[in-house]
Amino acid sequence: MIRAVVWNEFVHERENPVVRSIYPDGIHAAIAAAIAADAGIEATTATLDQPEHGLPADRLKDTDVLLWWGHKAHGTVEDAIVDRVVQRVHEGMGLIVLHSGHFAKVFKRLMGTPCSLRWREAGERERVWVINRSHPITQRIGDRLELPSEEMYGEPFLVPEPLETVMISWFEGGEVFRSGLTYQRGAGRIFYFRPGHETYPTYHDATIQQILRNAVRWAYNPAAAWHGVAEAPNVPVGRAPEKITQKGACLHEPDEEGYR
Amino acid sequence: MIRAVVWNEFVHERENPVVRSIYPDGIHAAIAAAIAADAGIEATTATLDQPEHGLPADRLKDTDVLLWWGHKAHGTVEDAIVDRVVQRVHEGMGLIVLHSGHFAKVFKRLMGTPCSLRWREAGERERVWVINRSHPITQRIGDRLELPSEEMYGEPFLVPEPLETVMISWFEGGEVFRSGLTYQRGAGRIFYFRPGHETYPTYHDATIQQILRNAVRWAYNPAAAWHGVAEAPNVPVGRAPEKITQKGACLHEPDEEGYR
Amino acid sequence: MIRAVVWNEFVHERENPVVRSIYPDGIHAAIAAAIAADAGIEATTATLDQPEHGLPADRLKDTDVLLWWGHKAHGTVEDAIVDRVVQRVHEGMGLIVLHSGHFAKVFKRLMGTPCSLRWREAGERERVWVINRSHPITQRIGDRLELPSEEMYGEPFLVPEPLETVMISWFEGGEVFRSGLTYQRGAGRIFYFRPGHETYPTYHDATIQQILRNAVRWAYNPAAAWHGVAEAPNVPVGRAPEKITQKGACLHEPDEEGYR
Amino acid sequence: MIRAVVWNEFVHERENPVVRSIYPDGIHAAIAAAIAADAGIEATTATLDQPEHGLPADRLKDTDVLLWWGHKAHGTVEDAIVDRVVQRVHEGMGLIVLHSGHFAKVFKRLMGTPCSLRWREAGERERVWVINRSHPITQRIGDRLELPSEEMYGEPFLVPEPLETVMISWFEGGEVFRSGLTYQRGAGRIFYFRPGHETYPTYHDATIQQILRNAVRWAYNPAAAWHGVAEAPNVPVGRAPEKITQKGACLHEPDEEGYR
Repeated sequence: MIRAVVWNEFVHERENPVVRSIYPDGIHAAIAAAIAADAGIEATTATLDQPEHGLPADRLKDTDVLLWWGHKAHGTVEDAIVDRVVQRVHEGMGLIVLHSGHFAKVFKRLMGTPCSLRWREAGERERVWVINRSHPITQRIGDRLELPSEEMYGEPFLVPEPLETVMISWFEGGEVFRSGLTYQRGAGRIFYFRPGHETYPTYHDATIQQILRNAVRWAYNPAAAWHGVAEAPNVPVGRAPEKITQKGACLHEPDEEGYR
Repeated sequence: MIRAVVWNEFVHERENPVVRSIYPDGIHAAIAAAIAADAGIEATTATLDQPEHGLPADRLKDTDVLLWWGHKAHGTVEDAIVDRVVQRVHEGMGLIVLHSGHFAKVFKRLMGTPCSLRWREAGERERVWVINRSHPITQRIGDRLELPSEEMYGEPFLVPEPLETVMISWFEGGEVFRSGLTYQRGAGRIFYFRPGHETYPTYHDATIQQILRNAVRWAYNPAAAWHGVAEAPNVPVGRAPEKITQKGACLHEPDEEGYR
Repeated sequence: MIRAVVWNEFVHERENPVVRSIYPDGIHAAIAAAIAADAGIEATTATLDQPEHGLPADRLKDTDVLLWWGHKAHGTVEDAIVDRVVQRVHEGMGLIVLHSGHFAKVFKRLMGTPCSLRWREAGERERVWVINRSHPITQRIGDRLELPSEEMYGEPFLVPEPLETVMISWFEGGEVFRSGLTYQRGAGRIFYFRPGHETYPTYHDATIQQILRNAVRWAYNPAAAWHGVAEAPNVPVGRAPEKITQKGACLHEPDEEGYR
Repeated sequence: MIRAVVWNEFVHERENPVVRSIYPDGIHAAIAAAIAADAGIEATTATLDQPEHGLPADRLKDTDVLLWWGHKAHGTVEDAIVDRVVQRVHEGMGLIVLHSGHFAKVFKRLMGTPCSLRWREAGERERVWVINRSHPITQRIGDRLELPSEEMYGEPFLVPEPLETVMISWFEGGEVFRSGLTYQRGAGRIFYFRPGHETYPTYHDATIQQILRNAVRWAYNPAAAWHGVAEAPNVPVGRAPEKITQKGACLHEPDEEGYR
């Protein structure tokens, strides 16, 4: 059983009647229901307003895949929680970043780039083209997908060249965007998936839901968590794989820890 | 003329007599002299103890390539300066990260990974193998390079898969390490180069100096700085490349800025 | 059940008493037994001397993962069979290329590079370092692997920059080599794995066998075969996703096939 | 001075009056004139009907960058010439593959994939978006480029994940395409550039011409040709970088050549 947690800032749904009418229980509830339709996925939710944003260390330790939806409140996510999420990704937790999450602190930290883009909220048509139809994330969705109304995101999208360009979007207004991108950071797999603006019923779309389920399975790493992924252990002369003898001057005392 | 700045924390040379005997004027001075031997490169230096670590915004604006050597004092580099350096890399400034700079804040921020590794200070022999002898960074250095005494860095090196694996090191004690790696982040090119432990005269080696000169030329991006690289401009309906009409509800007011 | 076929040229074992003493039934038999120890893998074998090299179209169609060992007889593999294997990889069949298979026609065709390297047959020690211990291919093998006697392969290895650098080898004689590399070509996953010289009992090593089982599972793509992967279908004006009208001159007649 | 050769099959211009009216001296002549407007580029041409397709070994040896336009006659390009071009790319010659050259033998050989795509000849509008405006290939062209009438190429484009995704196209009919992709194969740099259908005056467009000039400069590798790039030299025990002694059985005689 893959243990997925759907994180949502859960702000628009409380403040804006249009968003509330589409997602009365919050975007997180809609996404959790969608992925839990896969019998191999167990989905729970977490929101910004909960203690530790709903992501205490103990819970994150038992999370296999984290989905992240944020927009208006990126700046209020605490840095300590961001550090914790990033560390868990490095250890092997999968991360699926959704739509406006491109500017989430966790995504920017993992990409090392501005993650900026151009945008327009005009309810225009988006057609998502599948680049690799044999990829685990694109199974059972056909060769493309159409959304009658979505926010436009346009290139340039300031992210590193991805592991795989899985999908690219065409927009009615004339722009293009790399809508499905995969990354590996440490032991963790990351999938960025573009659609999902809060004023449209995107997460109620059956094909979008299939992609989310596929992505959870793809991002899941069954390997044991790599707890020491950020450590820099000293390998003393006596434990070198080949027999060597110390030469020259040493800055560090024997068994001293390295600098960080 | 390429304007290069060599940054050094400049701590070991003041505290440790062995390091001082090798680099009496600091590692930065040795590196600056080495790269300035290329008539097309103008080299100046900056150190941690200077105001704004020697990297005020005005100076960084006029820097084409920044070389970074740090070790003991990574933690004391101010976050505001780190932000500034990272932004300049995104805009197009080249960055060359040297040796223990693998744990520098600027490098970790740009990689999005722990940048951890295994290490041993035994003065052992290092042989750096050139993977692509036709790469601009490996010109005029032959097919490999030997250093009689260096600190060992061993895999796994927790960085993203690079744009290019340019060099890989063999160590006497039995380890291997990807010693020369290139990355692109925004408009900026990054080169990580492993050798350069402070207790050995690595930066006095003629081949190492040639690599540094090559790397400065490679990292230099003559394109105009991309000042807006981190901005997310709204493209209103009236300025869409194709004529479209507004559909559906809008969360944002016209001309409102996006959330970050 | 994953249907794996182990292909071997099966020449050295017949001609050379040393090789025959190590692999009396052929390298293919040893590898097939090793991977069939995984209850989810069904392993059969094919050899050069069989009709169509043991790879008729019907059999290849029902092959999920092909393992390839060749050395002395690369040149006698028929181009028509090479075409067939390459097409199946593009359609989604996994391919694991072993050791001297670096010069196999199928591998060179899929890489588009010379696949050359440096070599020495001195029975020296090889230590294979795991770069990503959380990768599916490196499960249950620890952080490194030692082979007391192997042929040396040294960089530069003339292959494209891989999807992932999974392992790098250290050799007693002073060289390094990227020993485990992954690629995606069309719908197919490719893993190159270095060890396996015919005069040493490498494929009898338990850790090597574990890696082979892992690699078969990793290379397996459960998606339906992408039969039309090499076709370039015309999308007539009337079937364009957006309504458009024909403009300007046309070289092709309606419904004409494209040139190849 | 960069020595560029523009290769064209030169068939449509002779057979089709529309194409001839646009390119009376052939597409190659138009492209050669465009790139020769850069004082640092010397441009000559070669065509299919010439002896050795205009690419004898002596000429190719002195070619820094080859541009390739082919369409109808891919199948008549001789394999020996293809081998020669591919070898020169591996040695360091730059290659720019234009439009329908996606199906050229030289491109398919260097990619190792089908290079297939979807297409439509409707004279529709193409908008090419620049993904990295700081890339050498995209200098002095702005953030996008519009062509009023072009052939549509649609994803999926069956090529390996590129080194860099430099441009992506939007088409009036609803498709998208990765229009500017870079690759490294051996010592050679490759740029695929999509626009350039023979029935439209694309190569007379000033922005397209600027991109071609930029691409020639980017693809040029000033390093000495890597003549032995495809060789696999033996490194005998006595010439190993570290002193080792022969262990175990040997298949090869001393100084014997390896198998291919």
